Amino acid sequence: MEFTNKAIGVDFGGTSIKFGVVLGKQIIAEAPPILPTDYPKPNDLIQAIADTCITLIAQHPEIKAIGCGVPGFVNTPTGLIHNLTNVPGWVDIPLRDLLSQKTGLPCIVENDANAMGVAEWKLGAGAGYQHLICLTLGTGVGGAIIVNDQLVRGAQFVAGELGQTSIHYNGRVGAYNNPGALEDYVGNNEFAADAQRAYFEAGIEKTLDACTPAALDAAATAGCEIAIACWDDFARKLACTLANCCWLLNPEAFVIGGGISKAGETLFQPLRKHVAAQLSAPFRDHLQIVPAKFSNEAGIIGCAVLALEATETEQLQS
Amino acid sequence: MEFTNKAIGVDFGGTSIKFGVVLGKQIIAEAPPILPTDYPKPNDLIQAIADTCITLIAQHPEIKAIGCGVPGFVNTPTGLIHNLTNVPGWVDIPLRDLLSQKTGLPCIVENDANAMGVAEWKLGAGAGYQHLICLTLGTGVGGAIIVNDQLVRGAQFVAGELGQTSIHYNGRVGAYNNPGALEDYVGNNEFAADAQRAYFEAGIEKTLDACTPAALDAAATAGCEIAIACWDDFARKLACTLANCCWLLNPEAFVIGGGISKAGETLFQPLRKHVAAQLSAPFRDHLQIVPAKFSNEAGIIGCAVLALEATETEQLQS
Repeated sequence: MEFTNKAIGVDFGGTSIKFGVVLGKQIIAEAPPILPTDYPKPNDLIQAIADTCITLIAQHPEIKAIGCGVPGFVNTPTGLIHNLTNVPGWVDIPLRDLLSQKTGLPCIVENDANAMGVAEWKLGAGAGYQHLICLTLGTGVGGAIIVNDQLVRGAQFVAGELGQTSIHYNGRVGAYNNPGALEDYVGNNEFAADAQRAYFEAGIEKTLDACTPAALDAAATAGCEIAIACWDDFARKLACTLANCCWLLNPEAFVIGGGISKAGETLFQPLRKHVAAQLSAPFRDHLQIVPAKFSNEAGIIGCAVLALEATETEQLQS
Repeated sequence: MEFTNKAIGVDFGGTSIKFGVVLGKQIIAEAPPILPTDYPKPNDLIQAIADTCITLIAQHPEIKAIGCGVPGFVNTPTGLIHNLTNVPGWVDIPLRDLLSQKTGLPCIVENDANAMGVAEWKLGAGAGYQHLICLTLGTGVGGAIIVNDQLVRGAQFVAGELGQTSIHYNGRVGAYNNPGALEDYVGNNEFAADAQRAYFEAGIEKTLDACTPAALDAAATAGCEIAIACWDDFARKLACTLANCCWLLNPEAFVIGGGISKAGETLFQPLRKHVAAQLSAPFRDHLQIVPAKFSNEAGIIGCAVLALEATETEQLQS
């Protein structure tokens, strides 16, 4: 993939909005302003986003497009945000058209997990794969699915919600009344609570703050058998969803990012073991399970890539 | 879709091989010979398949292609059968090329569950959908997945194995050491055994033969609360996998066939209820869960459609 034009990537998080100017695989202007999301009205925040973009465009005239990743339910072809998970008041807002009108540049709007997946698929650890699944492990579990060399958005553009898939038909009840939702087992907070319980059952009292993924990684690396068992249990549950994705979609690879993935082989070694143990040979033998290349910048890069691609294929209204 | 040419569809089952001559949506020669699969050598069976095709071609000169659906692991682009689940000796057999050489017609080879799904997608209850999942409920659970208006075969052409996906990360251990495999809960035999147990716990002794899907459908329709509860439990478990497919792929519809689906609303009513109960609105509101149009003939029709399409797009070697 050749890049000559620049694009702005906008990573719209639950509490703040980060900007980046992207050329090729790199963010070349790393520290533009970060905006909070708690403006009284969506229109004021949209104006602030547009103003930030206009400032960046003045500094980088090679910017040709804007891509905005949002945490919620968005209709990518129309650029309409239906609602945002953790940002009140953002209901049925035509963000793409508003940003485009205010900045004079073509824009795209994409779900943030899809944008992160696109970054890995086009430029990161998933480059070259035609059948790929990307996960982000954090407070929740996000995902993006690539099949036949295409991003899977689904009928209402809400595909890729790996964290809501069930690993137990009669299990813990999730945010949408869904039993056994993966993220209710392997989310940051649930992992800490399960680890605290495992220590307690072994006669050791720990605070939740002493059961962060980083703390459990350090403990496991130092040989703590309780911590090792916690990671094994975590990996076994996550492996259930990964194996399900394999049986359904037979991907070439999983790319796994997010805070918990920073544990590296503490996570990946038992995860590969558990996934391999429950698949037949054709599914298992060529499968890769690898860490993400990008970190916090994945969303910015993915949005910028999508914006530039859309510009180049003239799929944009501008 | 216009059909002017005919094709032979070959449905290669575990114990017998059925043939049909297909024009458009219909099998026009319904009762050609049925071959057993227990020939001493694969080559003898392949010759018998070819001879049957040659006889049909002599009767129907408009036949332009042959499609063969097989129960196992097949590389569709190369036409090589890696192995068949219940037919010994079929390892690494280039069935497509052998049949093509022997009959003089272009051939395709496809996984049988994919072929059944294609019949529903192109001509049946799934016609018009771009994001579709087809299931067959019987002794096992087969599936086919359509995303972005394309059949999903995956990296090694083994995608769509809905029956092997897990509904319980620590559940019943499946054929591939996979815990909680759906078909170990909703396969014909498991459904009967679970129903027998439910009756027994209520003080009623039944043979397994009295717990077939047809018997349980009749009992539920007559108002038997135990049978109704069995169907509700069945639907709840199947709903777990359907909901997982929704979160991952956001399909427009599920098309469900196979013996158990003949229970009709006895199955579909609780199934729709359980699926809807564990999905958020964007996933749920437009989702269709419908019975398959085709029955035993789905494999024959799907193979014939794939063969004709491949001929028309000149993707075949001949």
